[in-house]
Amino acid sequence: MKRLTIKDIAAKSGVSISTVSRVLNRKEEGMSQETREKVLQVIEELNYQPNLFARGLITKQSKLLGLVVPNIQNPFFPELCRGAEDEANRHQYSLIICNSDDNAAKEESYLRLLNEKQVDGILLSSGDNLSVLTEKQLEYGNTPFVLMDRGGNSGKYNSIFVDNEKGGYLAGRHLIELGHRKVACIIGSKNLRNSNERLAGFRRAMMEVGMELPDDHIINGEFHIEPAYKQSKEFLENKNVTAIFTCNDLMACGVYQAASELGMKIPDDLSIIGFDDIPLVSALIPKLTTIRQDIYNMGRRAAKMLIDHIEKGENDIVIFEPSIIVRGSTKAI
Amino acid sequence: MKRLTIKDIAAKSGVSISTVSRVLNRKEEGMSQETREKVLQVIEELNYQPNLFARGLITKQSKLLGLVVPNIQNPFFPELCRGAEDEANRHQYSLIICNSDDNAAKEESYLRLLNEKQVDGILLSSGDNLSVLTEKQLEYGNTPFVLMDRGGNSGKYNSIFVDNEKGGYLAGRHLIELGHRKVACIIGSKNLRNSNERLAGFRRAMMEVGMELPDDHIINGEFHIEPAYKQSKEFLENKNVTAIFTCNDLMACGVYQAASELGMKIPDDLSIIGFDDIPLVSALIPKLTTIRQDIYNMGRRAAKMLIDHIEKGENDIVIFEPSIIVRGSTKAI
Repeated sequence: MKRLTIKDIAAKSGVSISTVSRVLNRKEEGMSQETREKVLQVIEELNYQPNLFARGLITKQSKLLGLVVPNIQNPFFPELCRGAEDEANRHQYSLIICNSDDNAAKEESYLRLLNEKQVDGILLSSGDNLSVLTEKQLEYGNTPFVLMDRGGNSGKYNSIFVDNEKGGYLAGRHLIELGHRKVACIIGSKNLRNSNERLAGFRRAMMEVGMELPDDHIINGEFHIEPAYKQSKEFLENKNVTAIFTCNDLMACGVYQAASELGMKIPDDLSIIGFDDIPLVSALIPKLTTIRQDIYNMGRRAAKMLIDHIEKGENDIVIFEPSIIVRGSTKAI
Repeated sequence: MKRLTIKDIAAKSGVSISTVSRVLNRKEEGMSQETREKVLQVIEELNYQPNLFARGLITKQSKLLGLVVPNIQNPFFPELCRGAEDEANRHQYSLIICNSDDNAAKEESYLRLLNEKQVDGILLSSGDNLSVLTEKQLEYGNTPFVLMDRGGNSGKYNSIFVDNEKGGYLAGRHLIELGHRKVACIIGSKNLRNSNERLAGFRRAMMEVGMELPDDHIINGEFHIEPAYKQSKEFLENKNVTAIFTCNDLMACGVYQAASELGMKIPDDLSIIGFDDIPLVSALIPKLTTIRQDIYNMGRRAAKMLIDHIEKGENDIVIFEPSIIVRGSTKAI
């Protein structure tokens, strides 16, 4: 079946191509009601679907947005992606998904590709800090963008973040209020900003009550299950703590495994509090107490910010408030 | 900054627009080496990024693919999506993601949208069976497509599925070999094809050894954690079985919870085997024995099939083999 073109519609309606184009683009001022209806009827009769390439050349809009995330397989990002897609769809935009693997060269290459595809805007969850490559491409590309969750919160760009420091503080307060005085923190990695901010907030809660977090109670779990499992198992075999804060939920899963193998009961022998509130945690027994980021709504809000920027030139920086969700993995001692 | 156009390149190179176009589209036969190099040099100097709308009008290719899934938040689909995106990217295609929520009207509307966006092809994980709306839109739309995981395996369309019946059989054989004779099966829902096929395979394994699966040992867990938790808890309070096969991994999480609340130890008091091998299961203690689908590679293969269909007109139906992954949740009695 040959694809119908605007020419076919024009011929069948007995009007000019430019008249059909005006109807398709809703620029019908001065056109008779009769003409307009005739064209619309033919469009319906022939079940015509407009060629968005041609329309894109006229409107300079692709109605496409790019979404660049490190990896959709990390359970944080499907939530963010779904929020962004729902909001984009509500405004007639479609979302192109790209997985950068936290690789600056791959990220930059995707940004260049999205630019070539003439996307109207880009949602970017970058590496921890924007790489020079990425920043250069963003500025050169001249395509509107919003940074999400990562990529530096320097205040320079439209962006959306959770207040990581406050989240860490909430985790610390919770453990202190439950009476815990011997605690440890499993961090993402020494130079990850998100992780460092969560640790700083956790420490602030300790300091408020004159507690210290010894350096050897800060464990690098690399934000993943396996390293968190190994490191926390070794730690728990040698040190005596009553509670652990993990800077994300995945690492809490690793601590559950370590505790189970060491015969420690959660929360009787060990309290655990996580960060993120990804759906994964509903599989844990007992269910995980955690610091919640409203990931889905961060995705929606980021898409809305981007569209407002594209359509109205608005700029914004939004900080989401974290909250604590108390479930079964923490207990007063 | 005004976007550069092909005209600027032509002017600066001192050649015609059509010459620049031929270079951009690698149709340079008969062109002098000198002309070609001059154009390429200007493109590089000005850091020109081609307008893919314009190029799309010439090549009739958008290099866009659509990916329609029920919901990226269901942990099965990020794996599939990542596989598809990796393969698409390898062939210079980008992927537009759409969440249909298993809603036929929403699915049909996305298919129409993707058609309007002139995608070169569509990867569709549809509802259980293709709805009339969807099938009509697929046929009318005239855009190449591949069905993945769901949407009927009638043999009519290019598609990729796992052998669900065989997977169910493997689960049944495993439990029988471990000596289990009193077993139950938690299914997705009475009219889901995937679920029914898994159940049928499970039953075949029972029948081979003269066992029967009583109707009241078949429990509807709706493919989700919560209903599986509630139904299995009620079941385990009233019936005496030594093993349960859940038709997906999410439902196994629900059974873990029920068993924990009833004081039953896994695998000592109850063996559990799941289906899918989603990453979620690594958070369970003990780790889940399950029937593995190679979800990531199904995504890659589906994208490859689609691209081969687009570029070479090839058609194919691929059935993936399931395999059993024995971990800690099943035990001989």
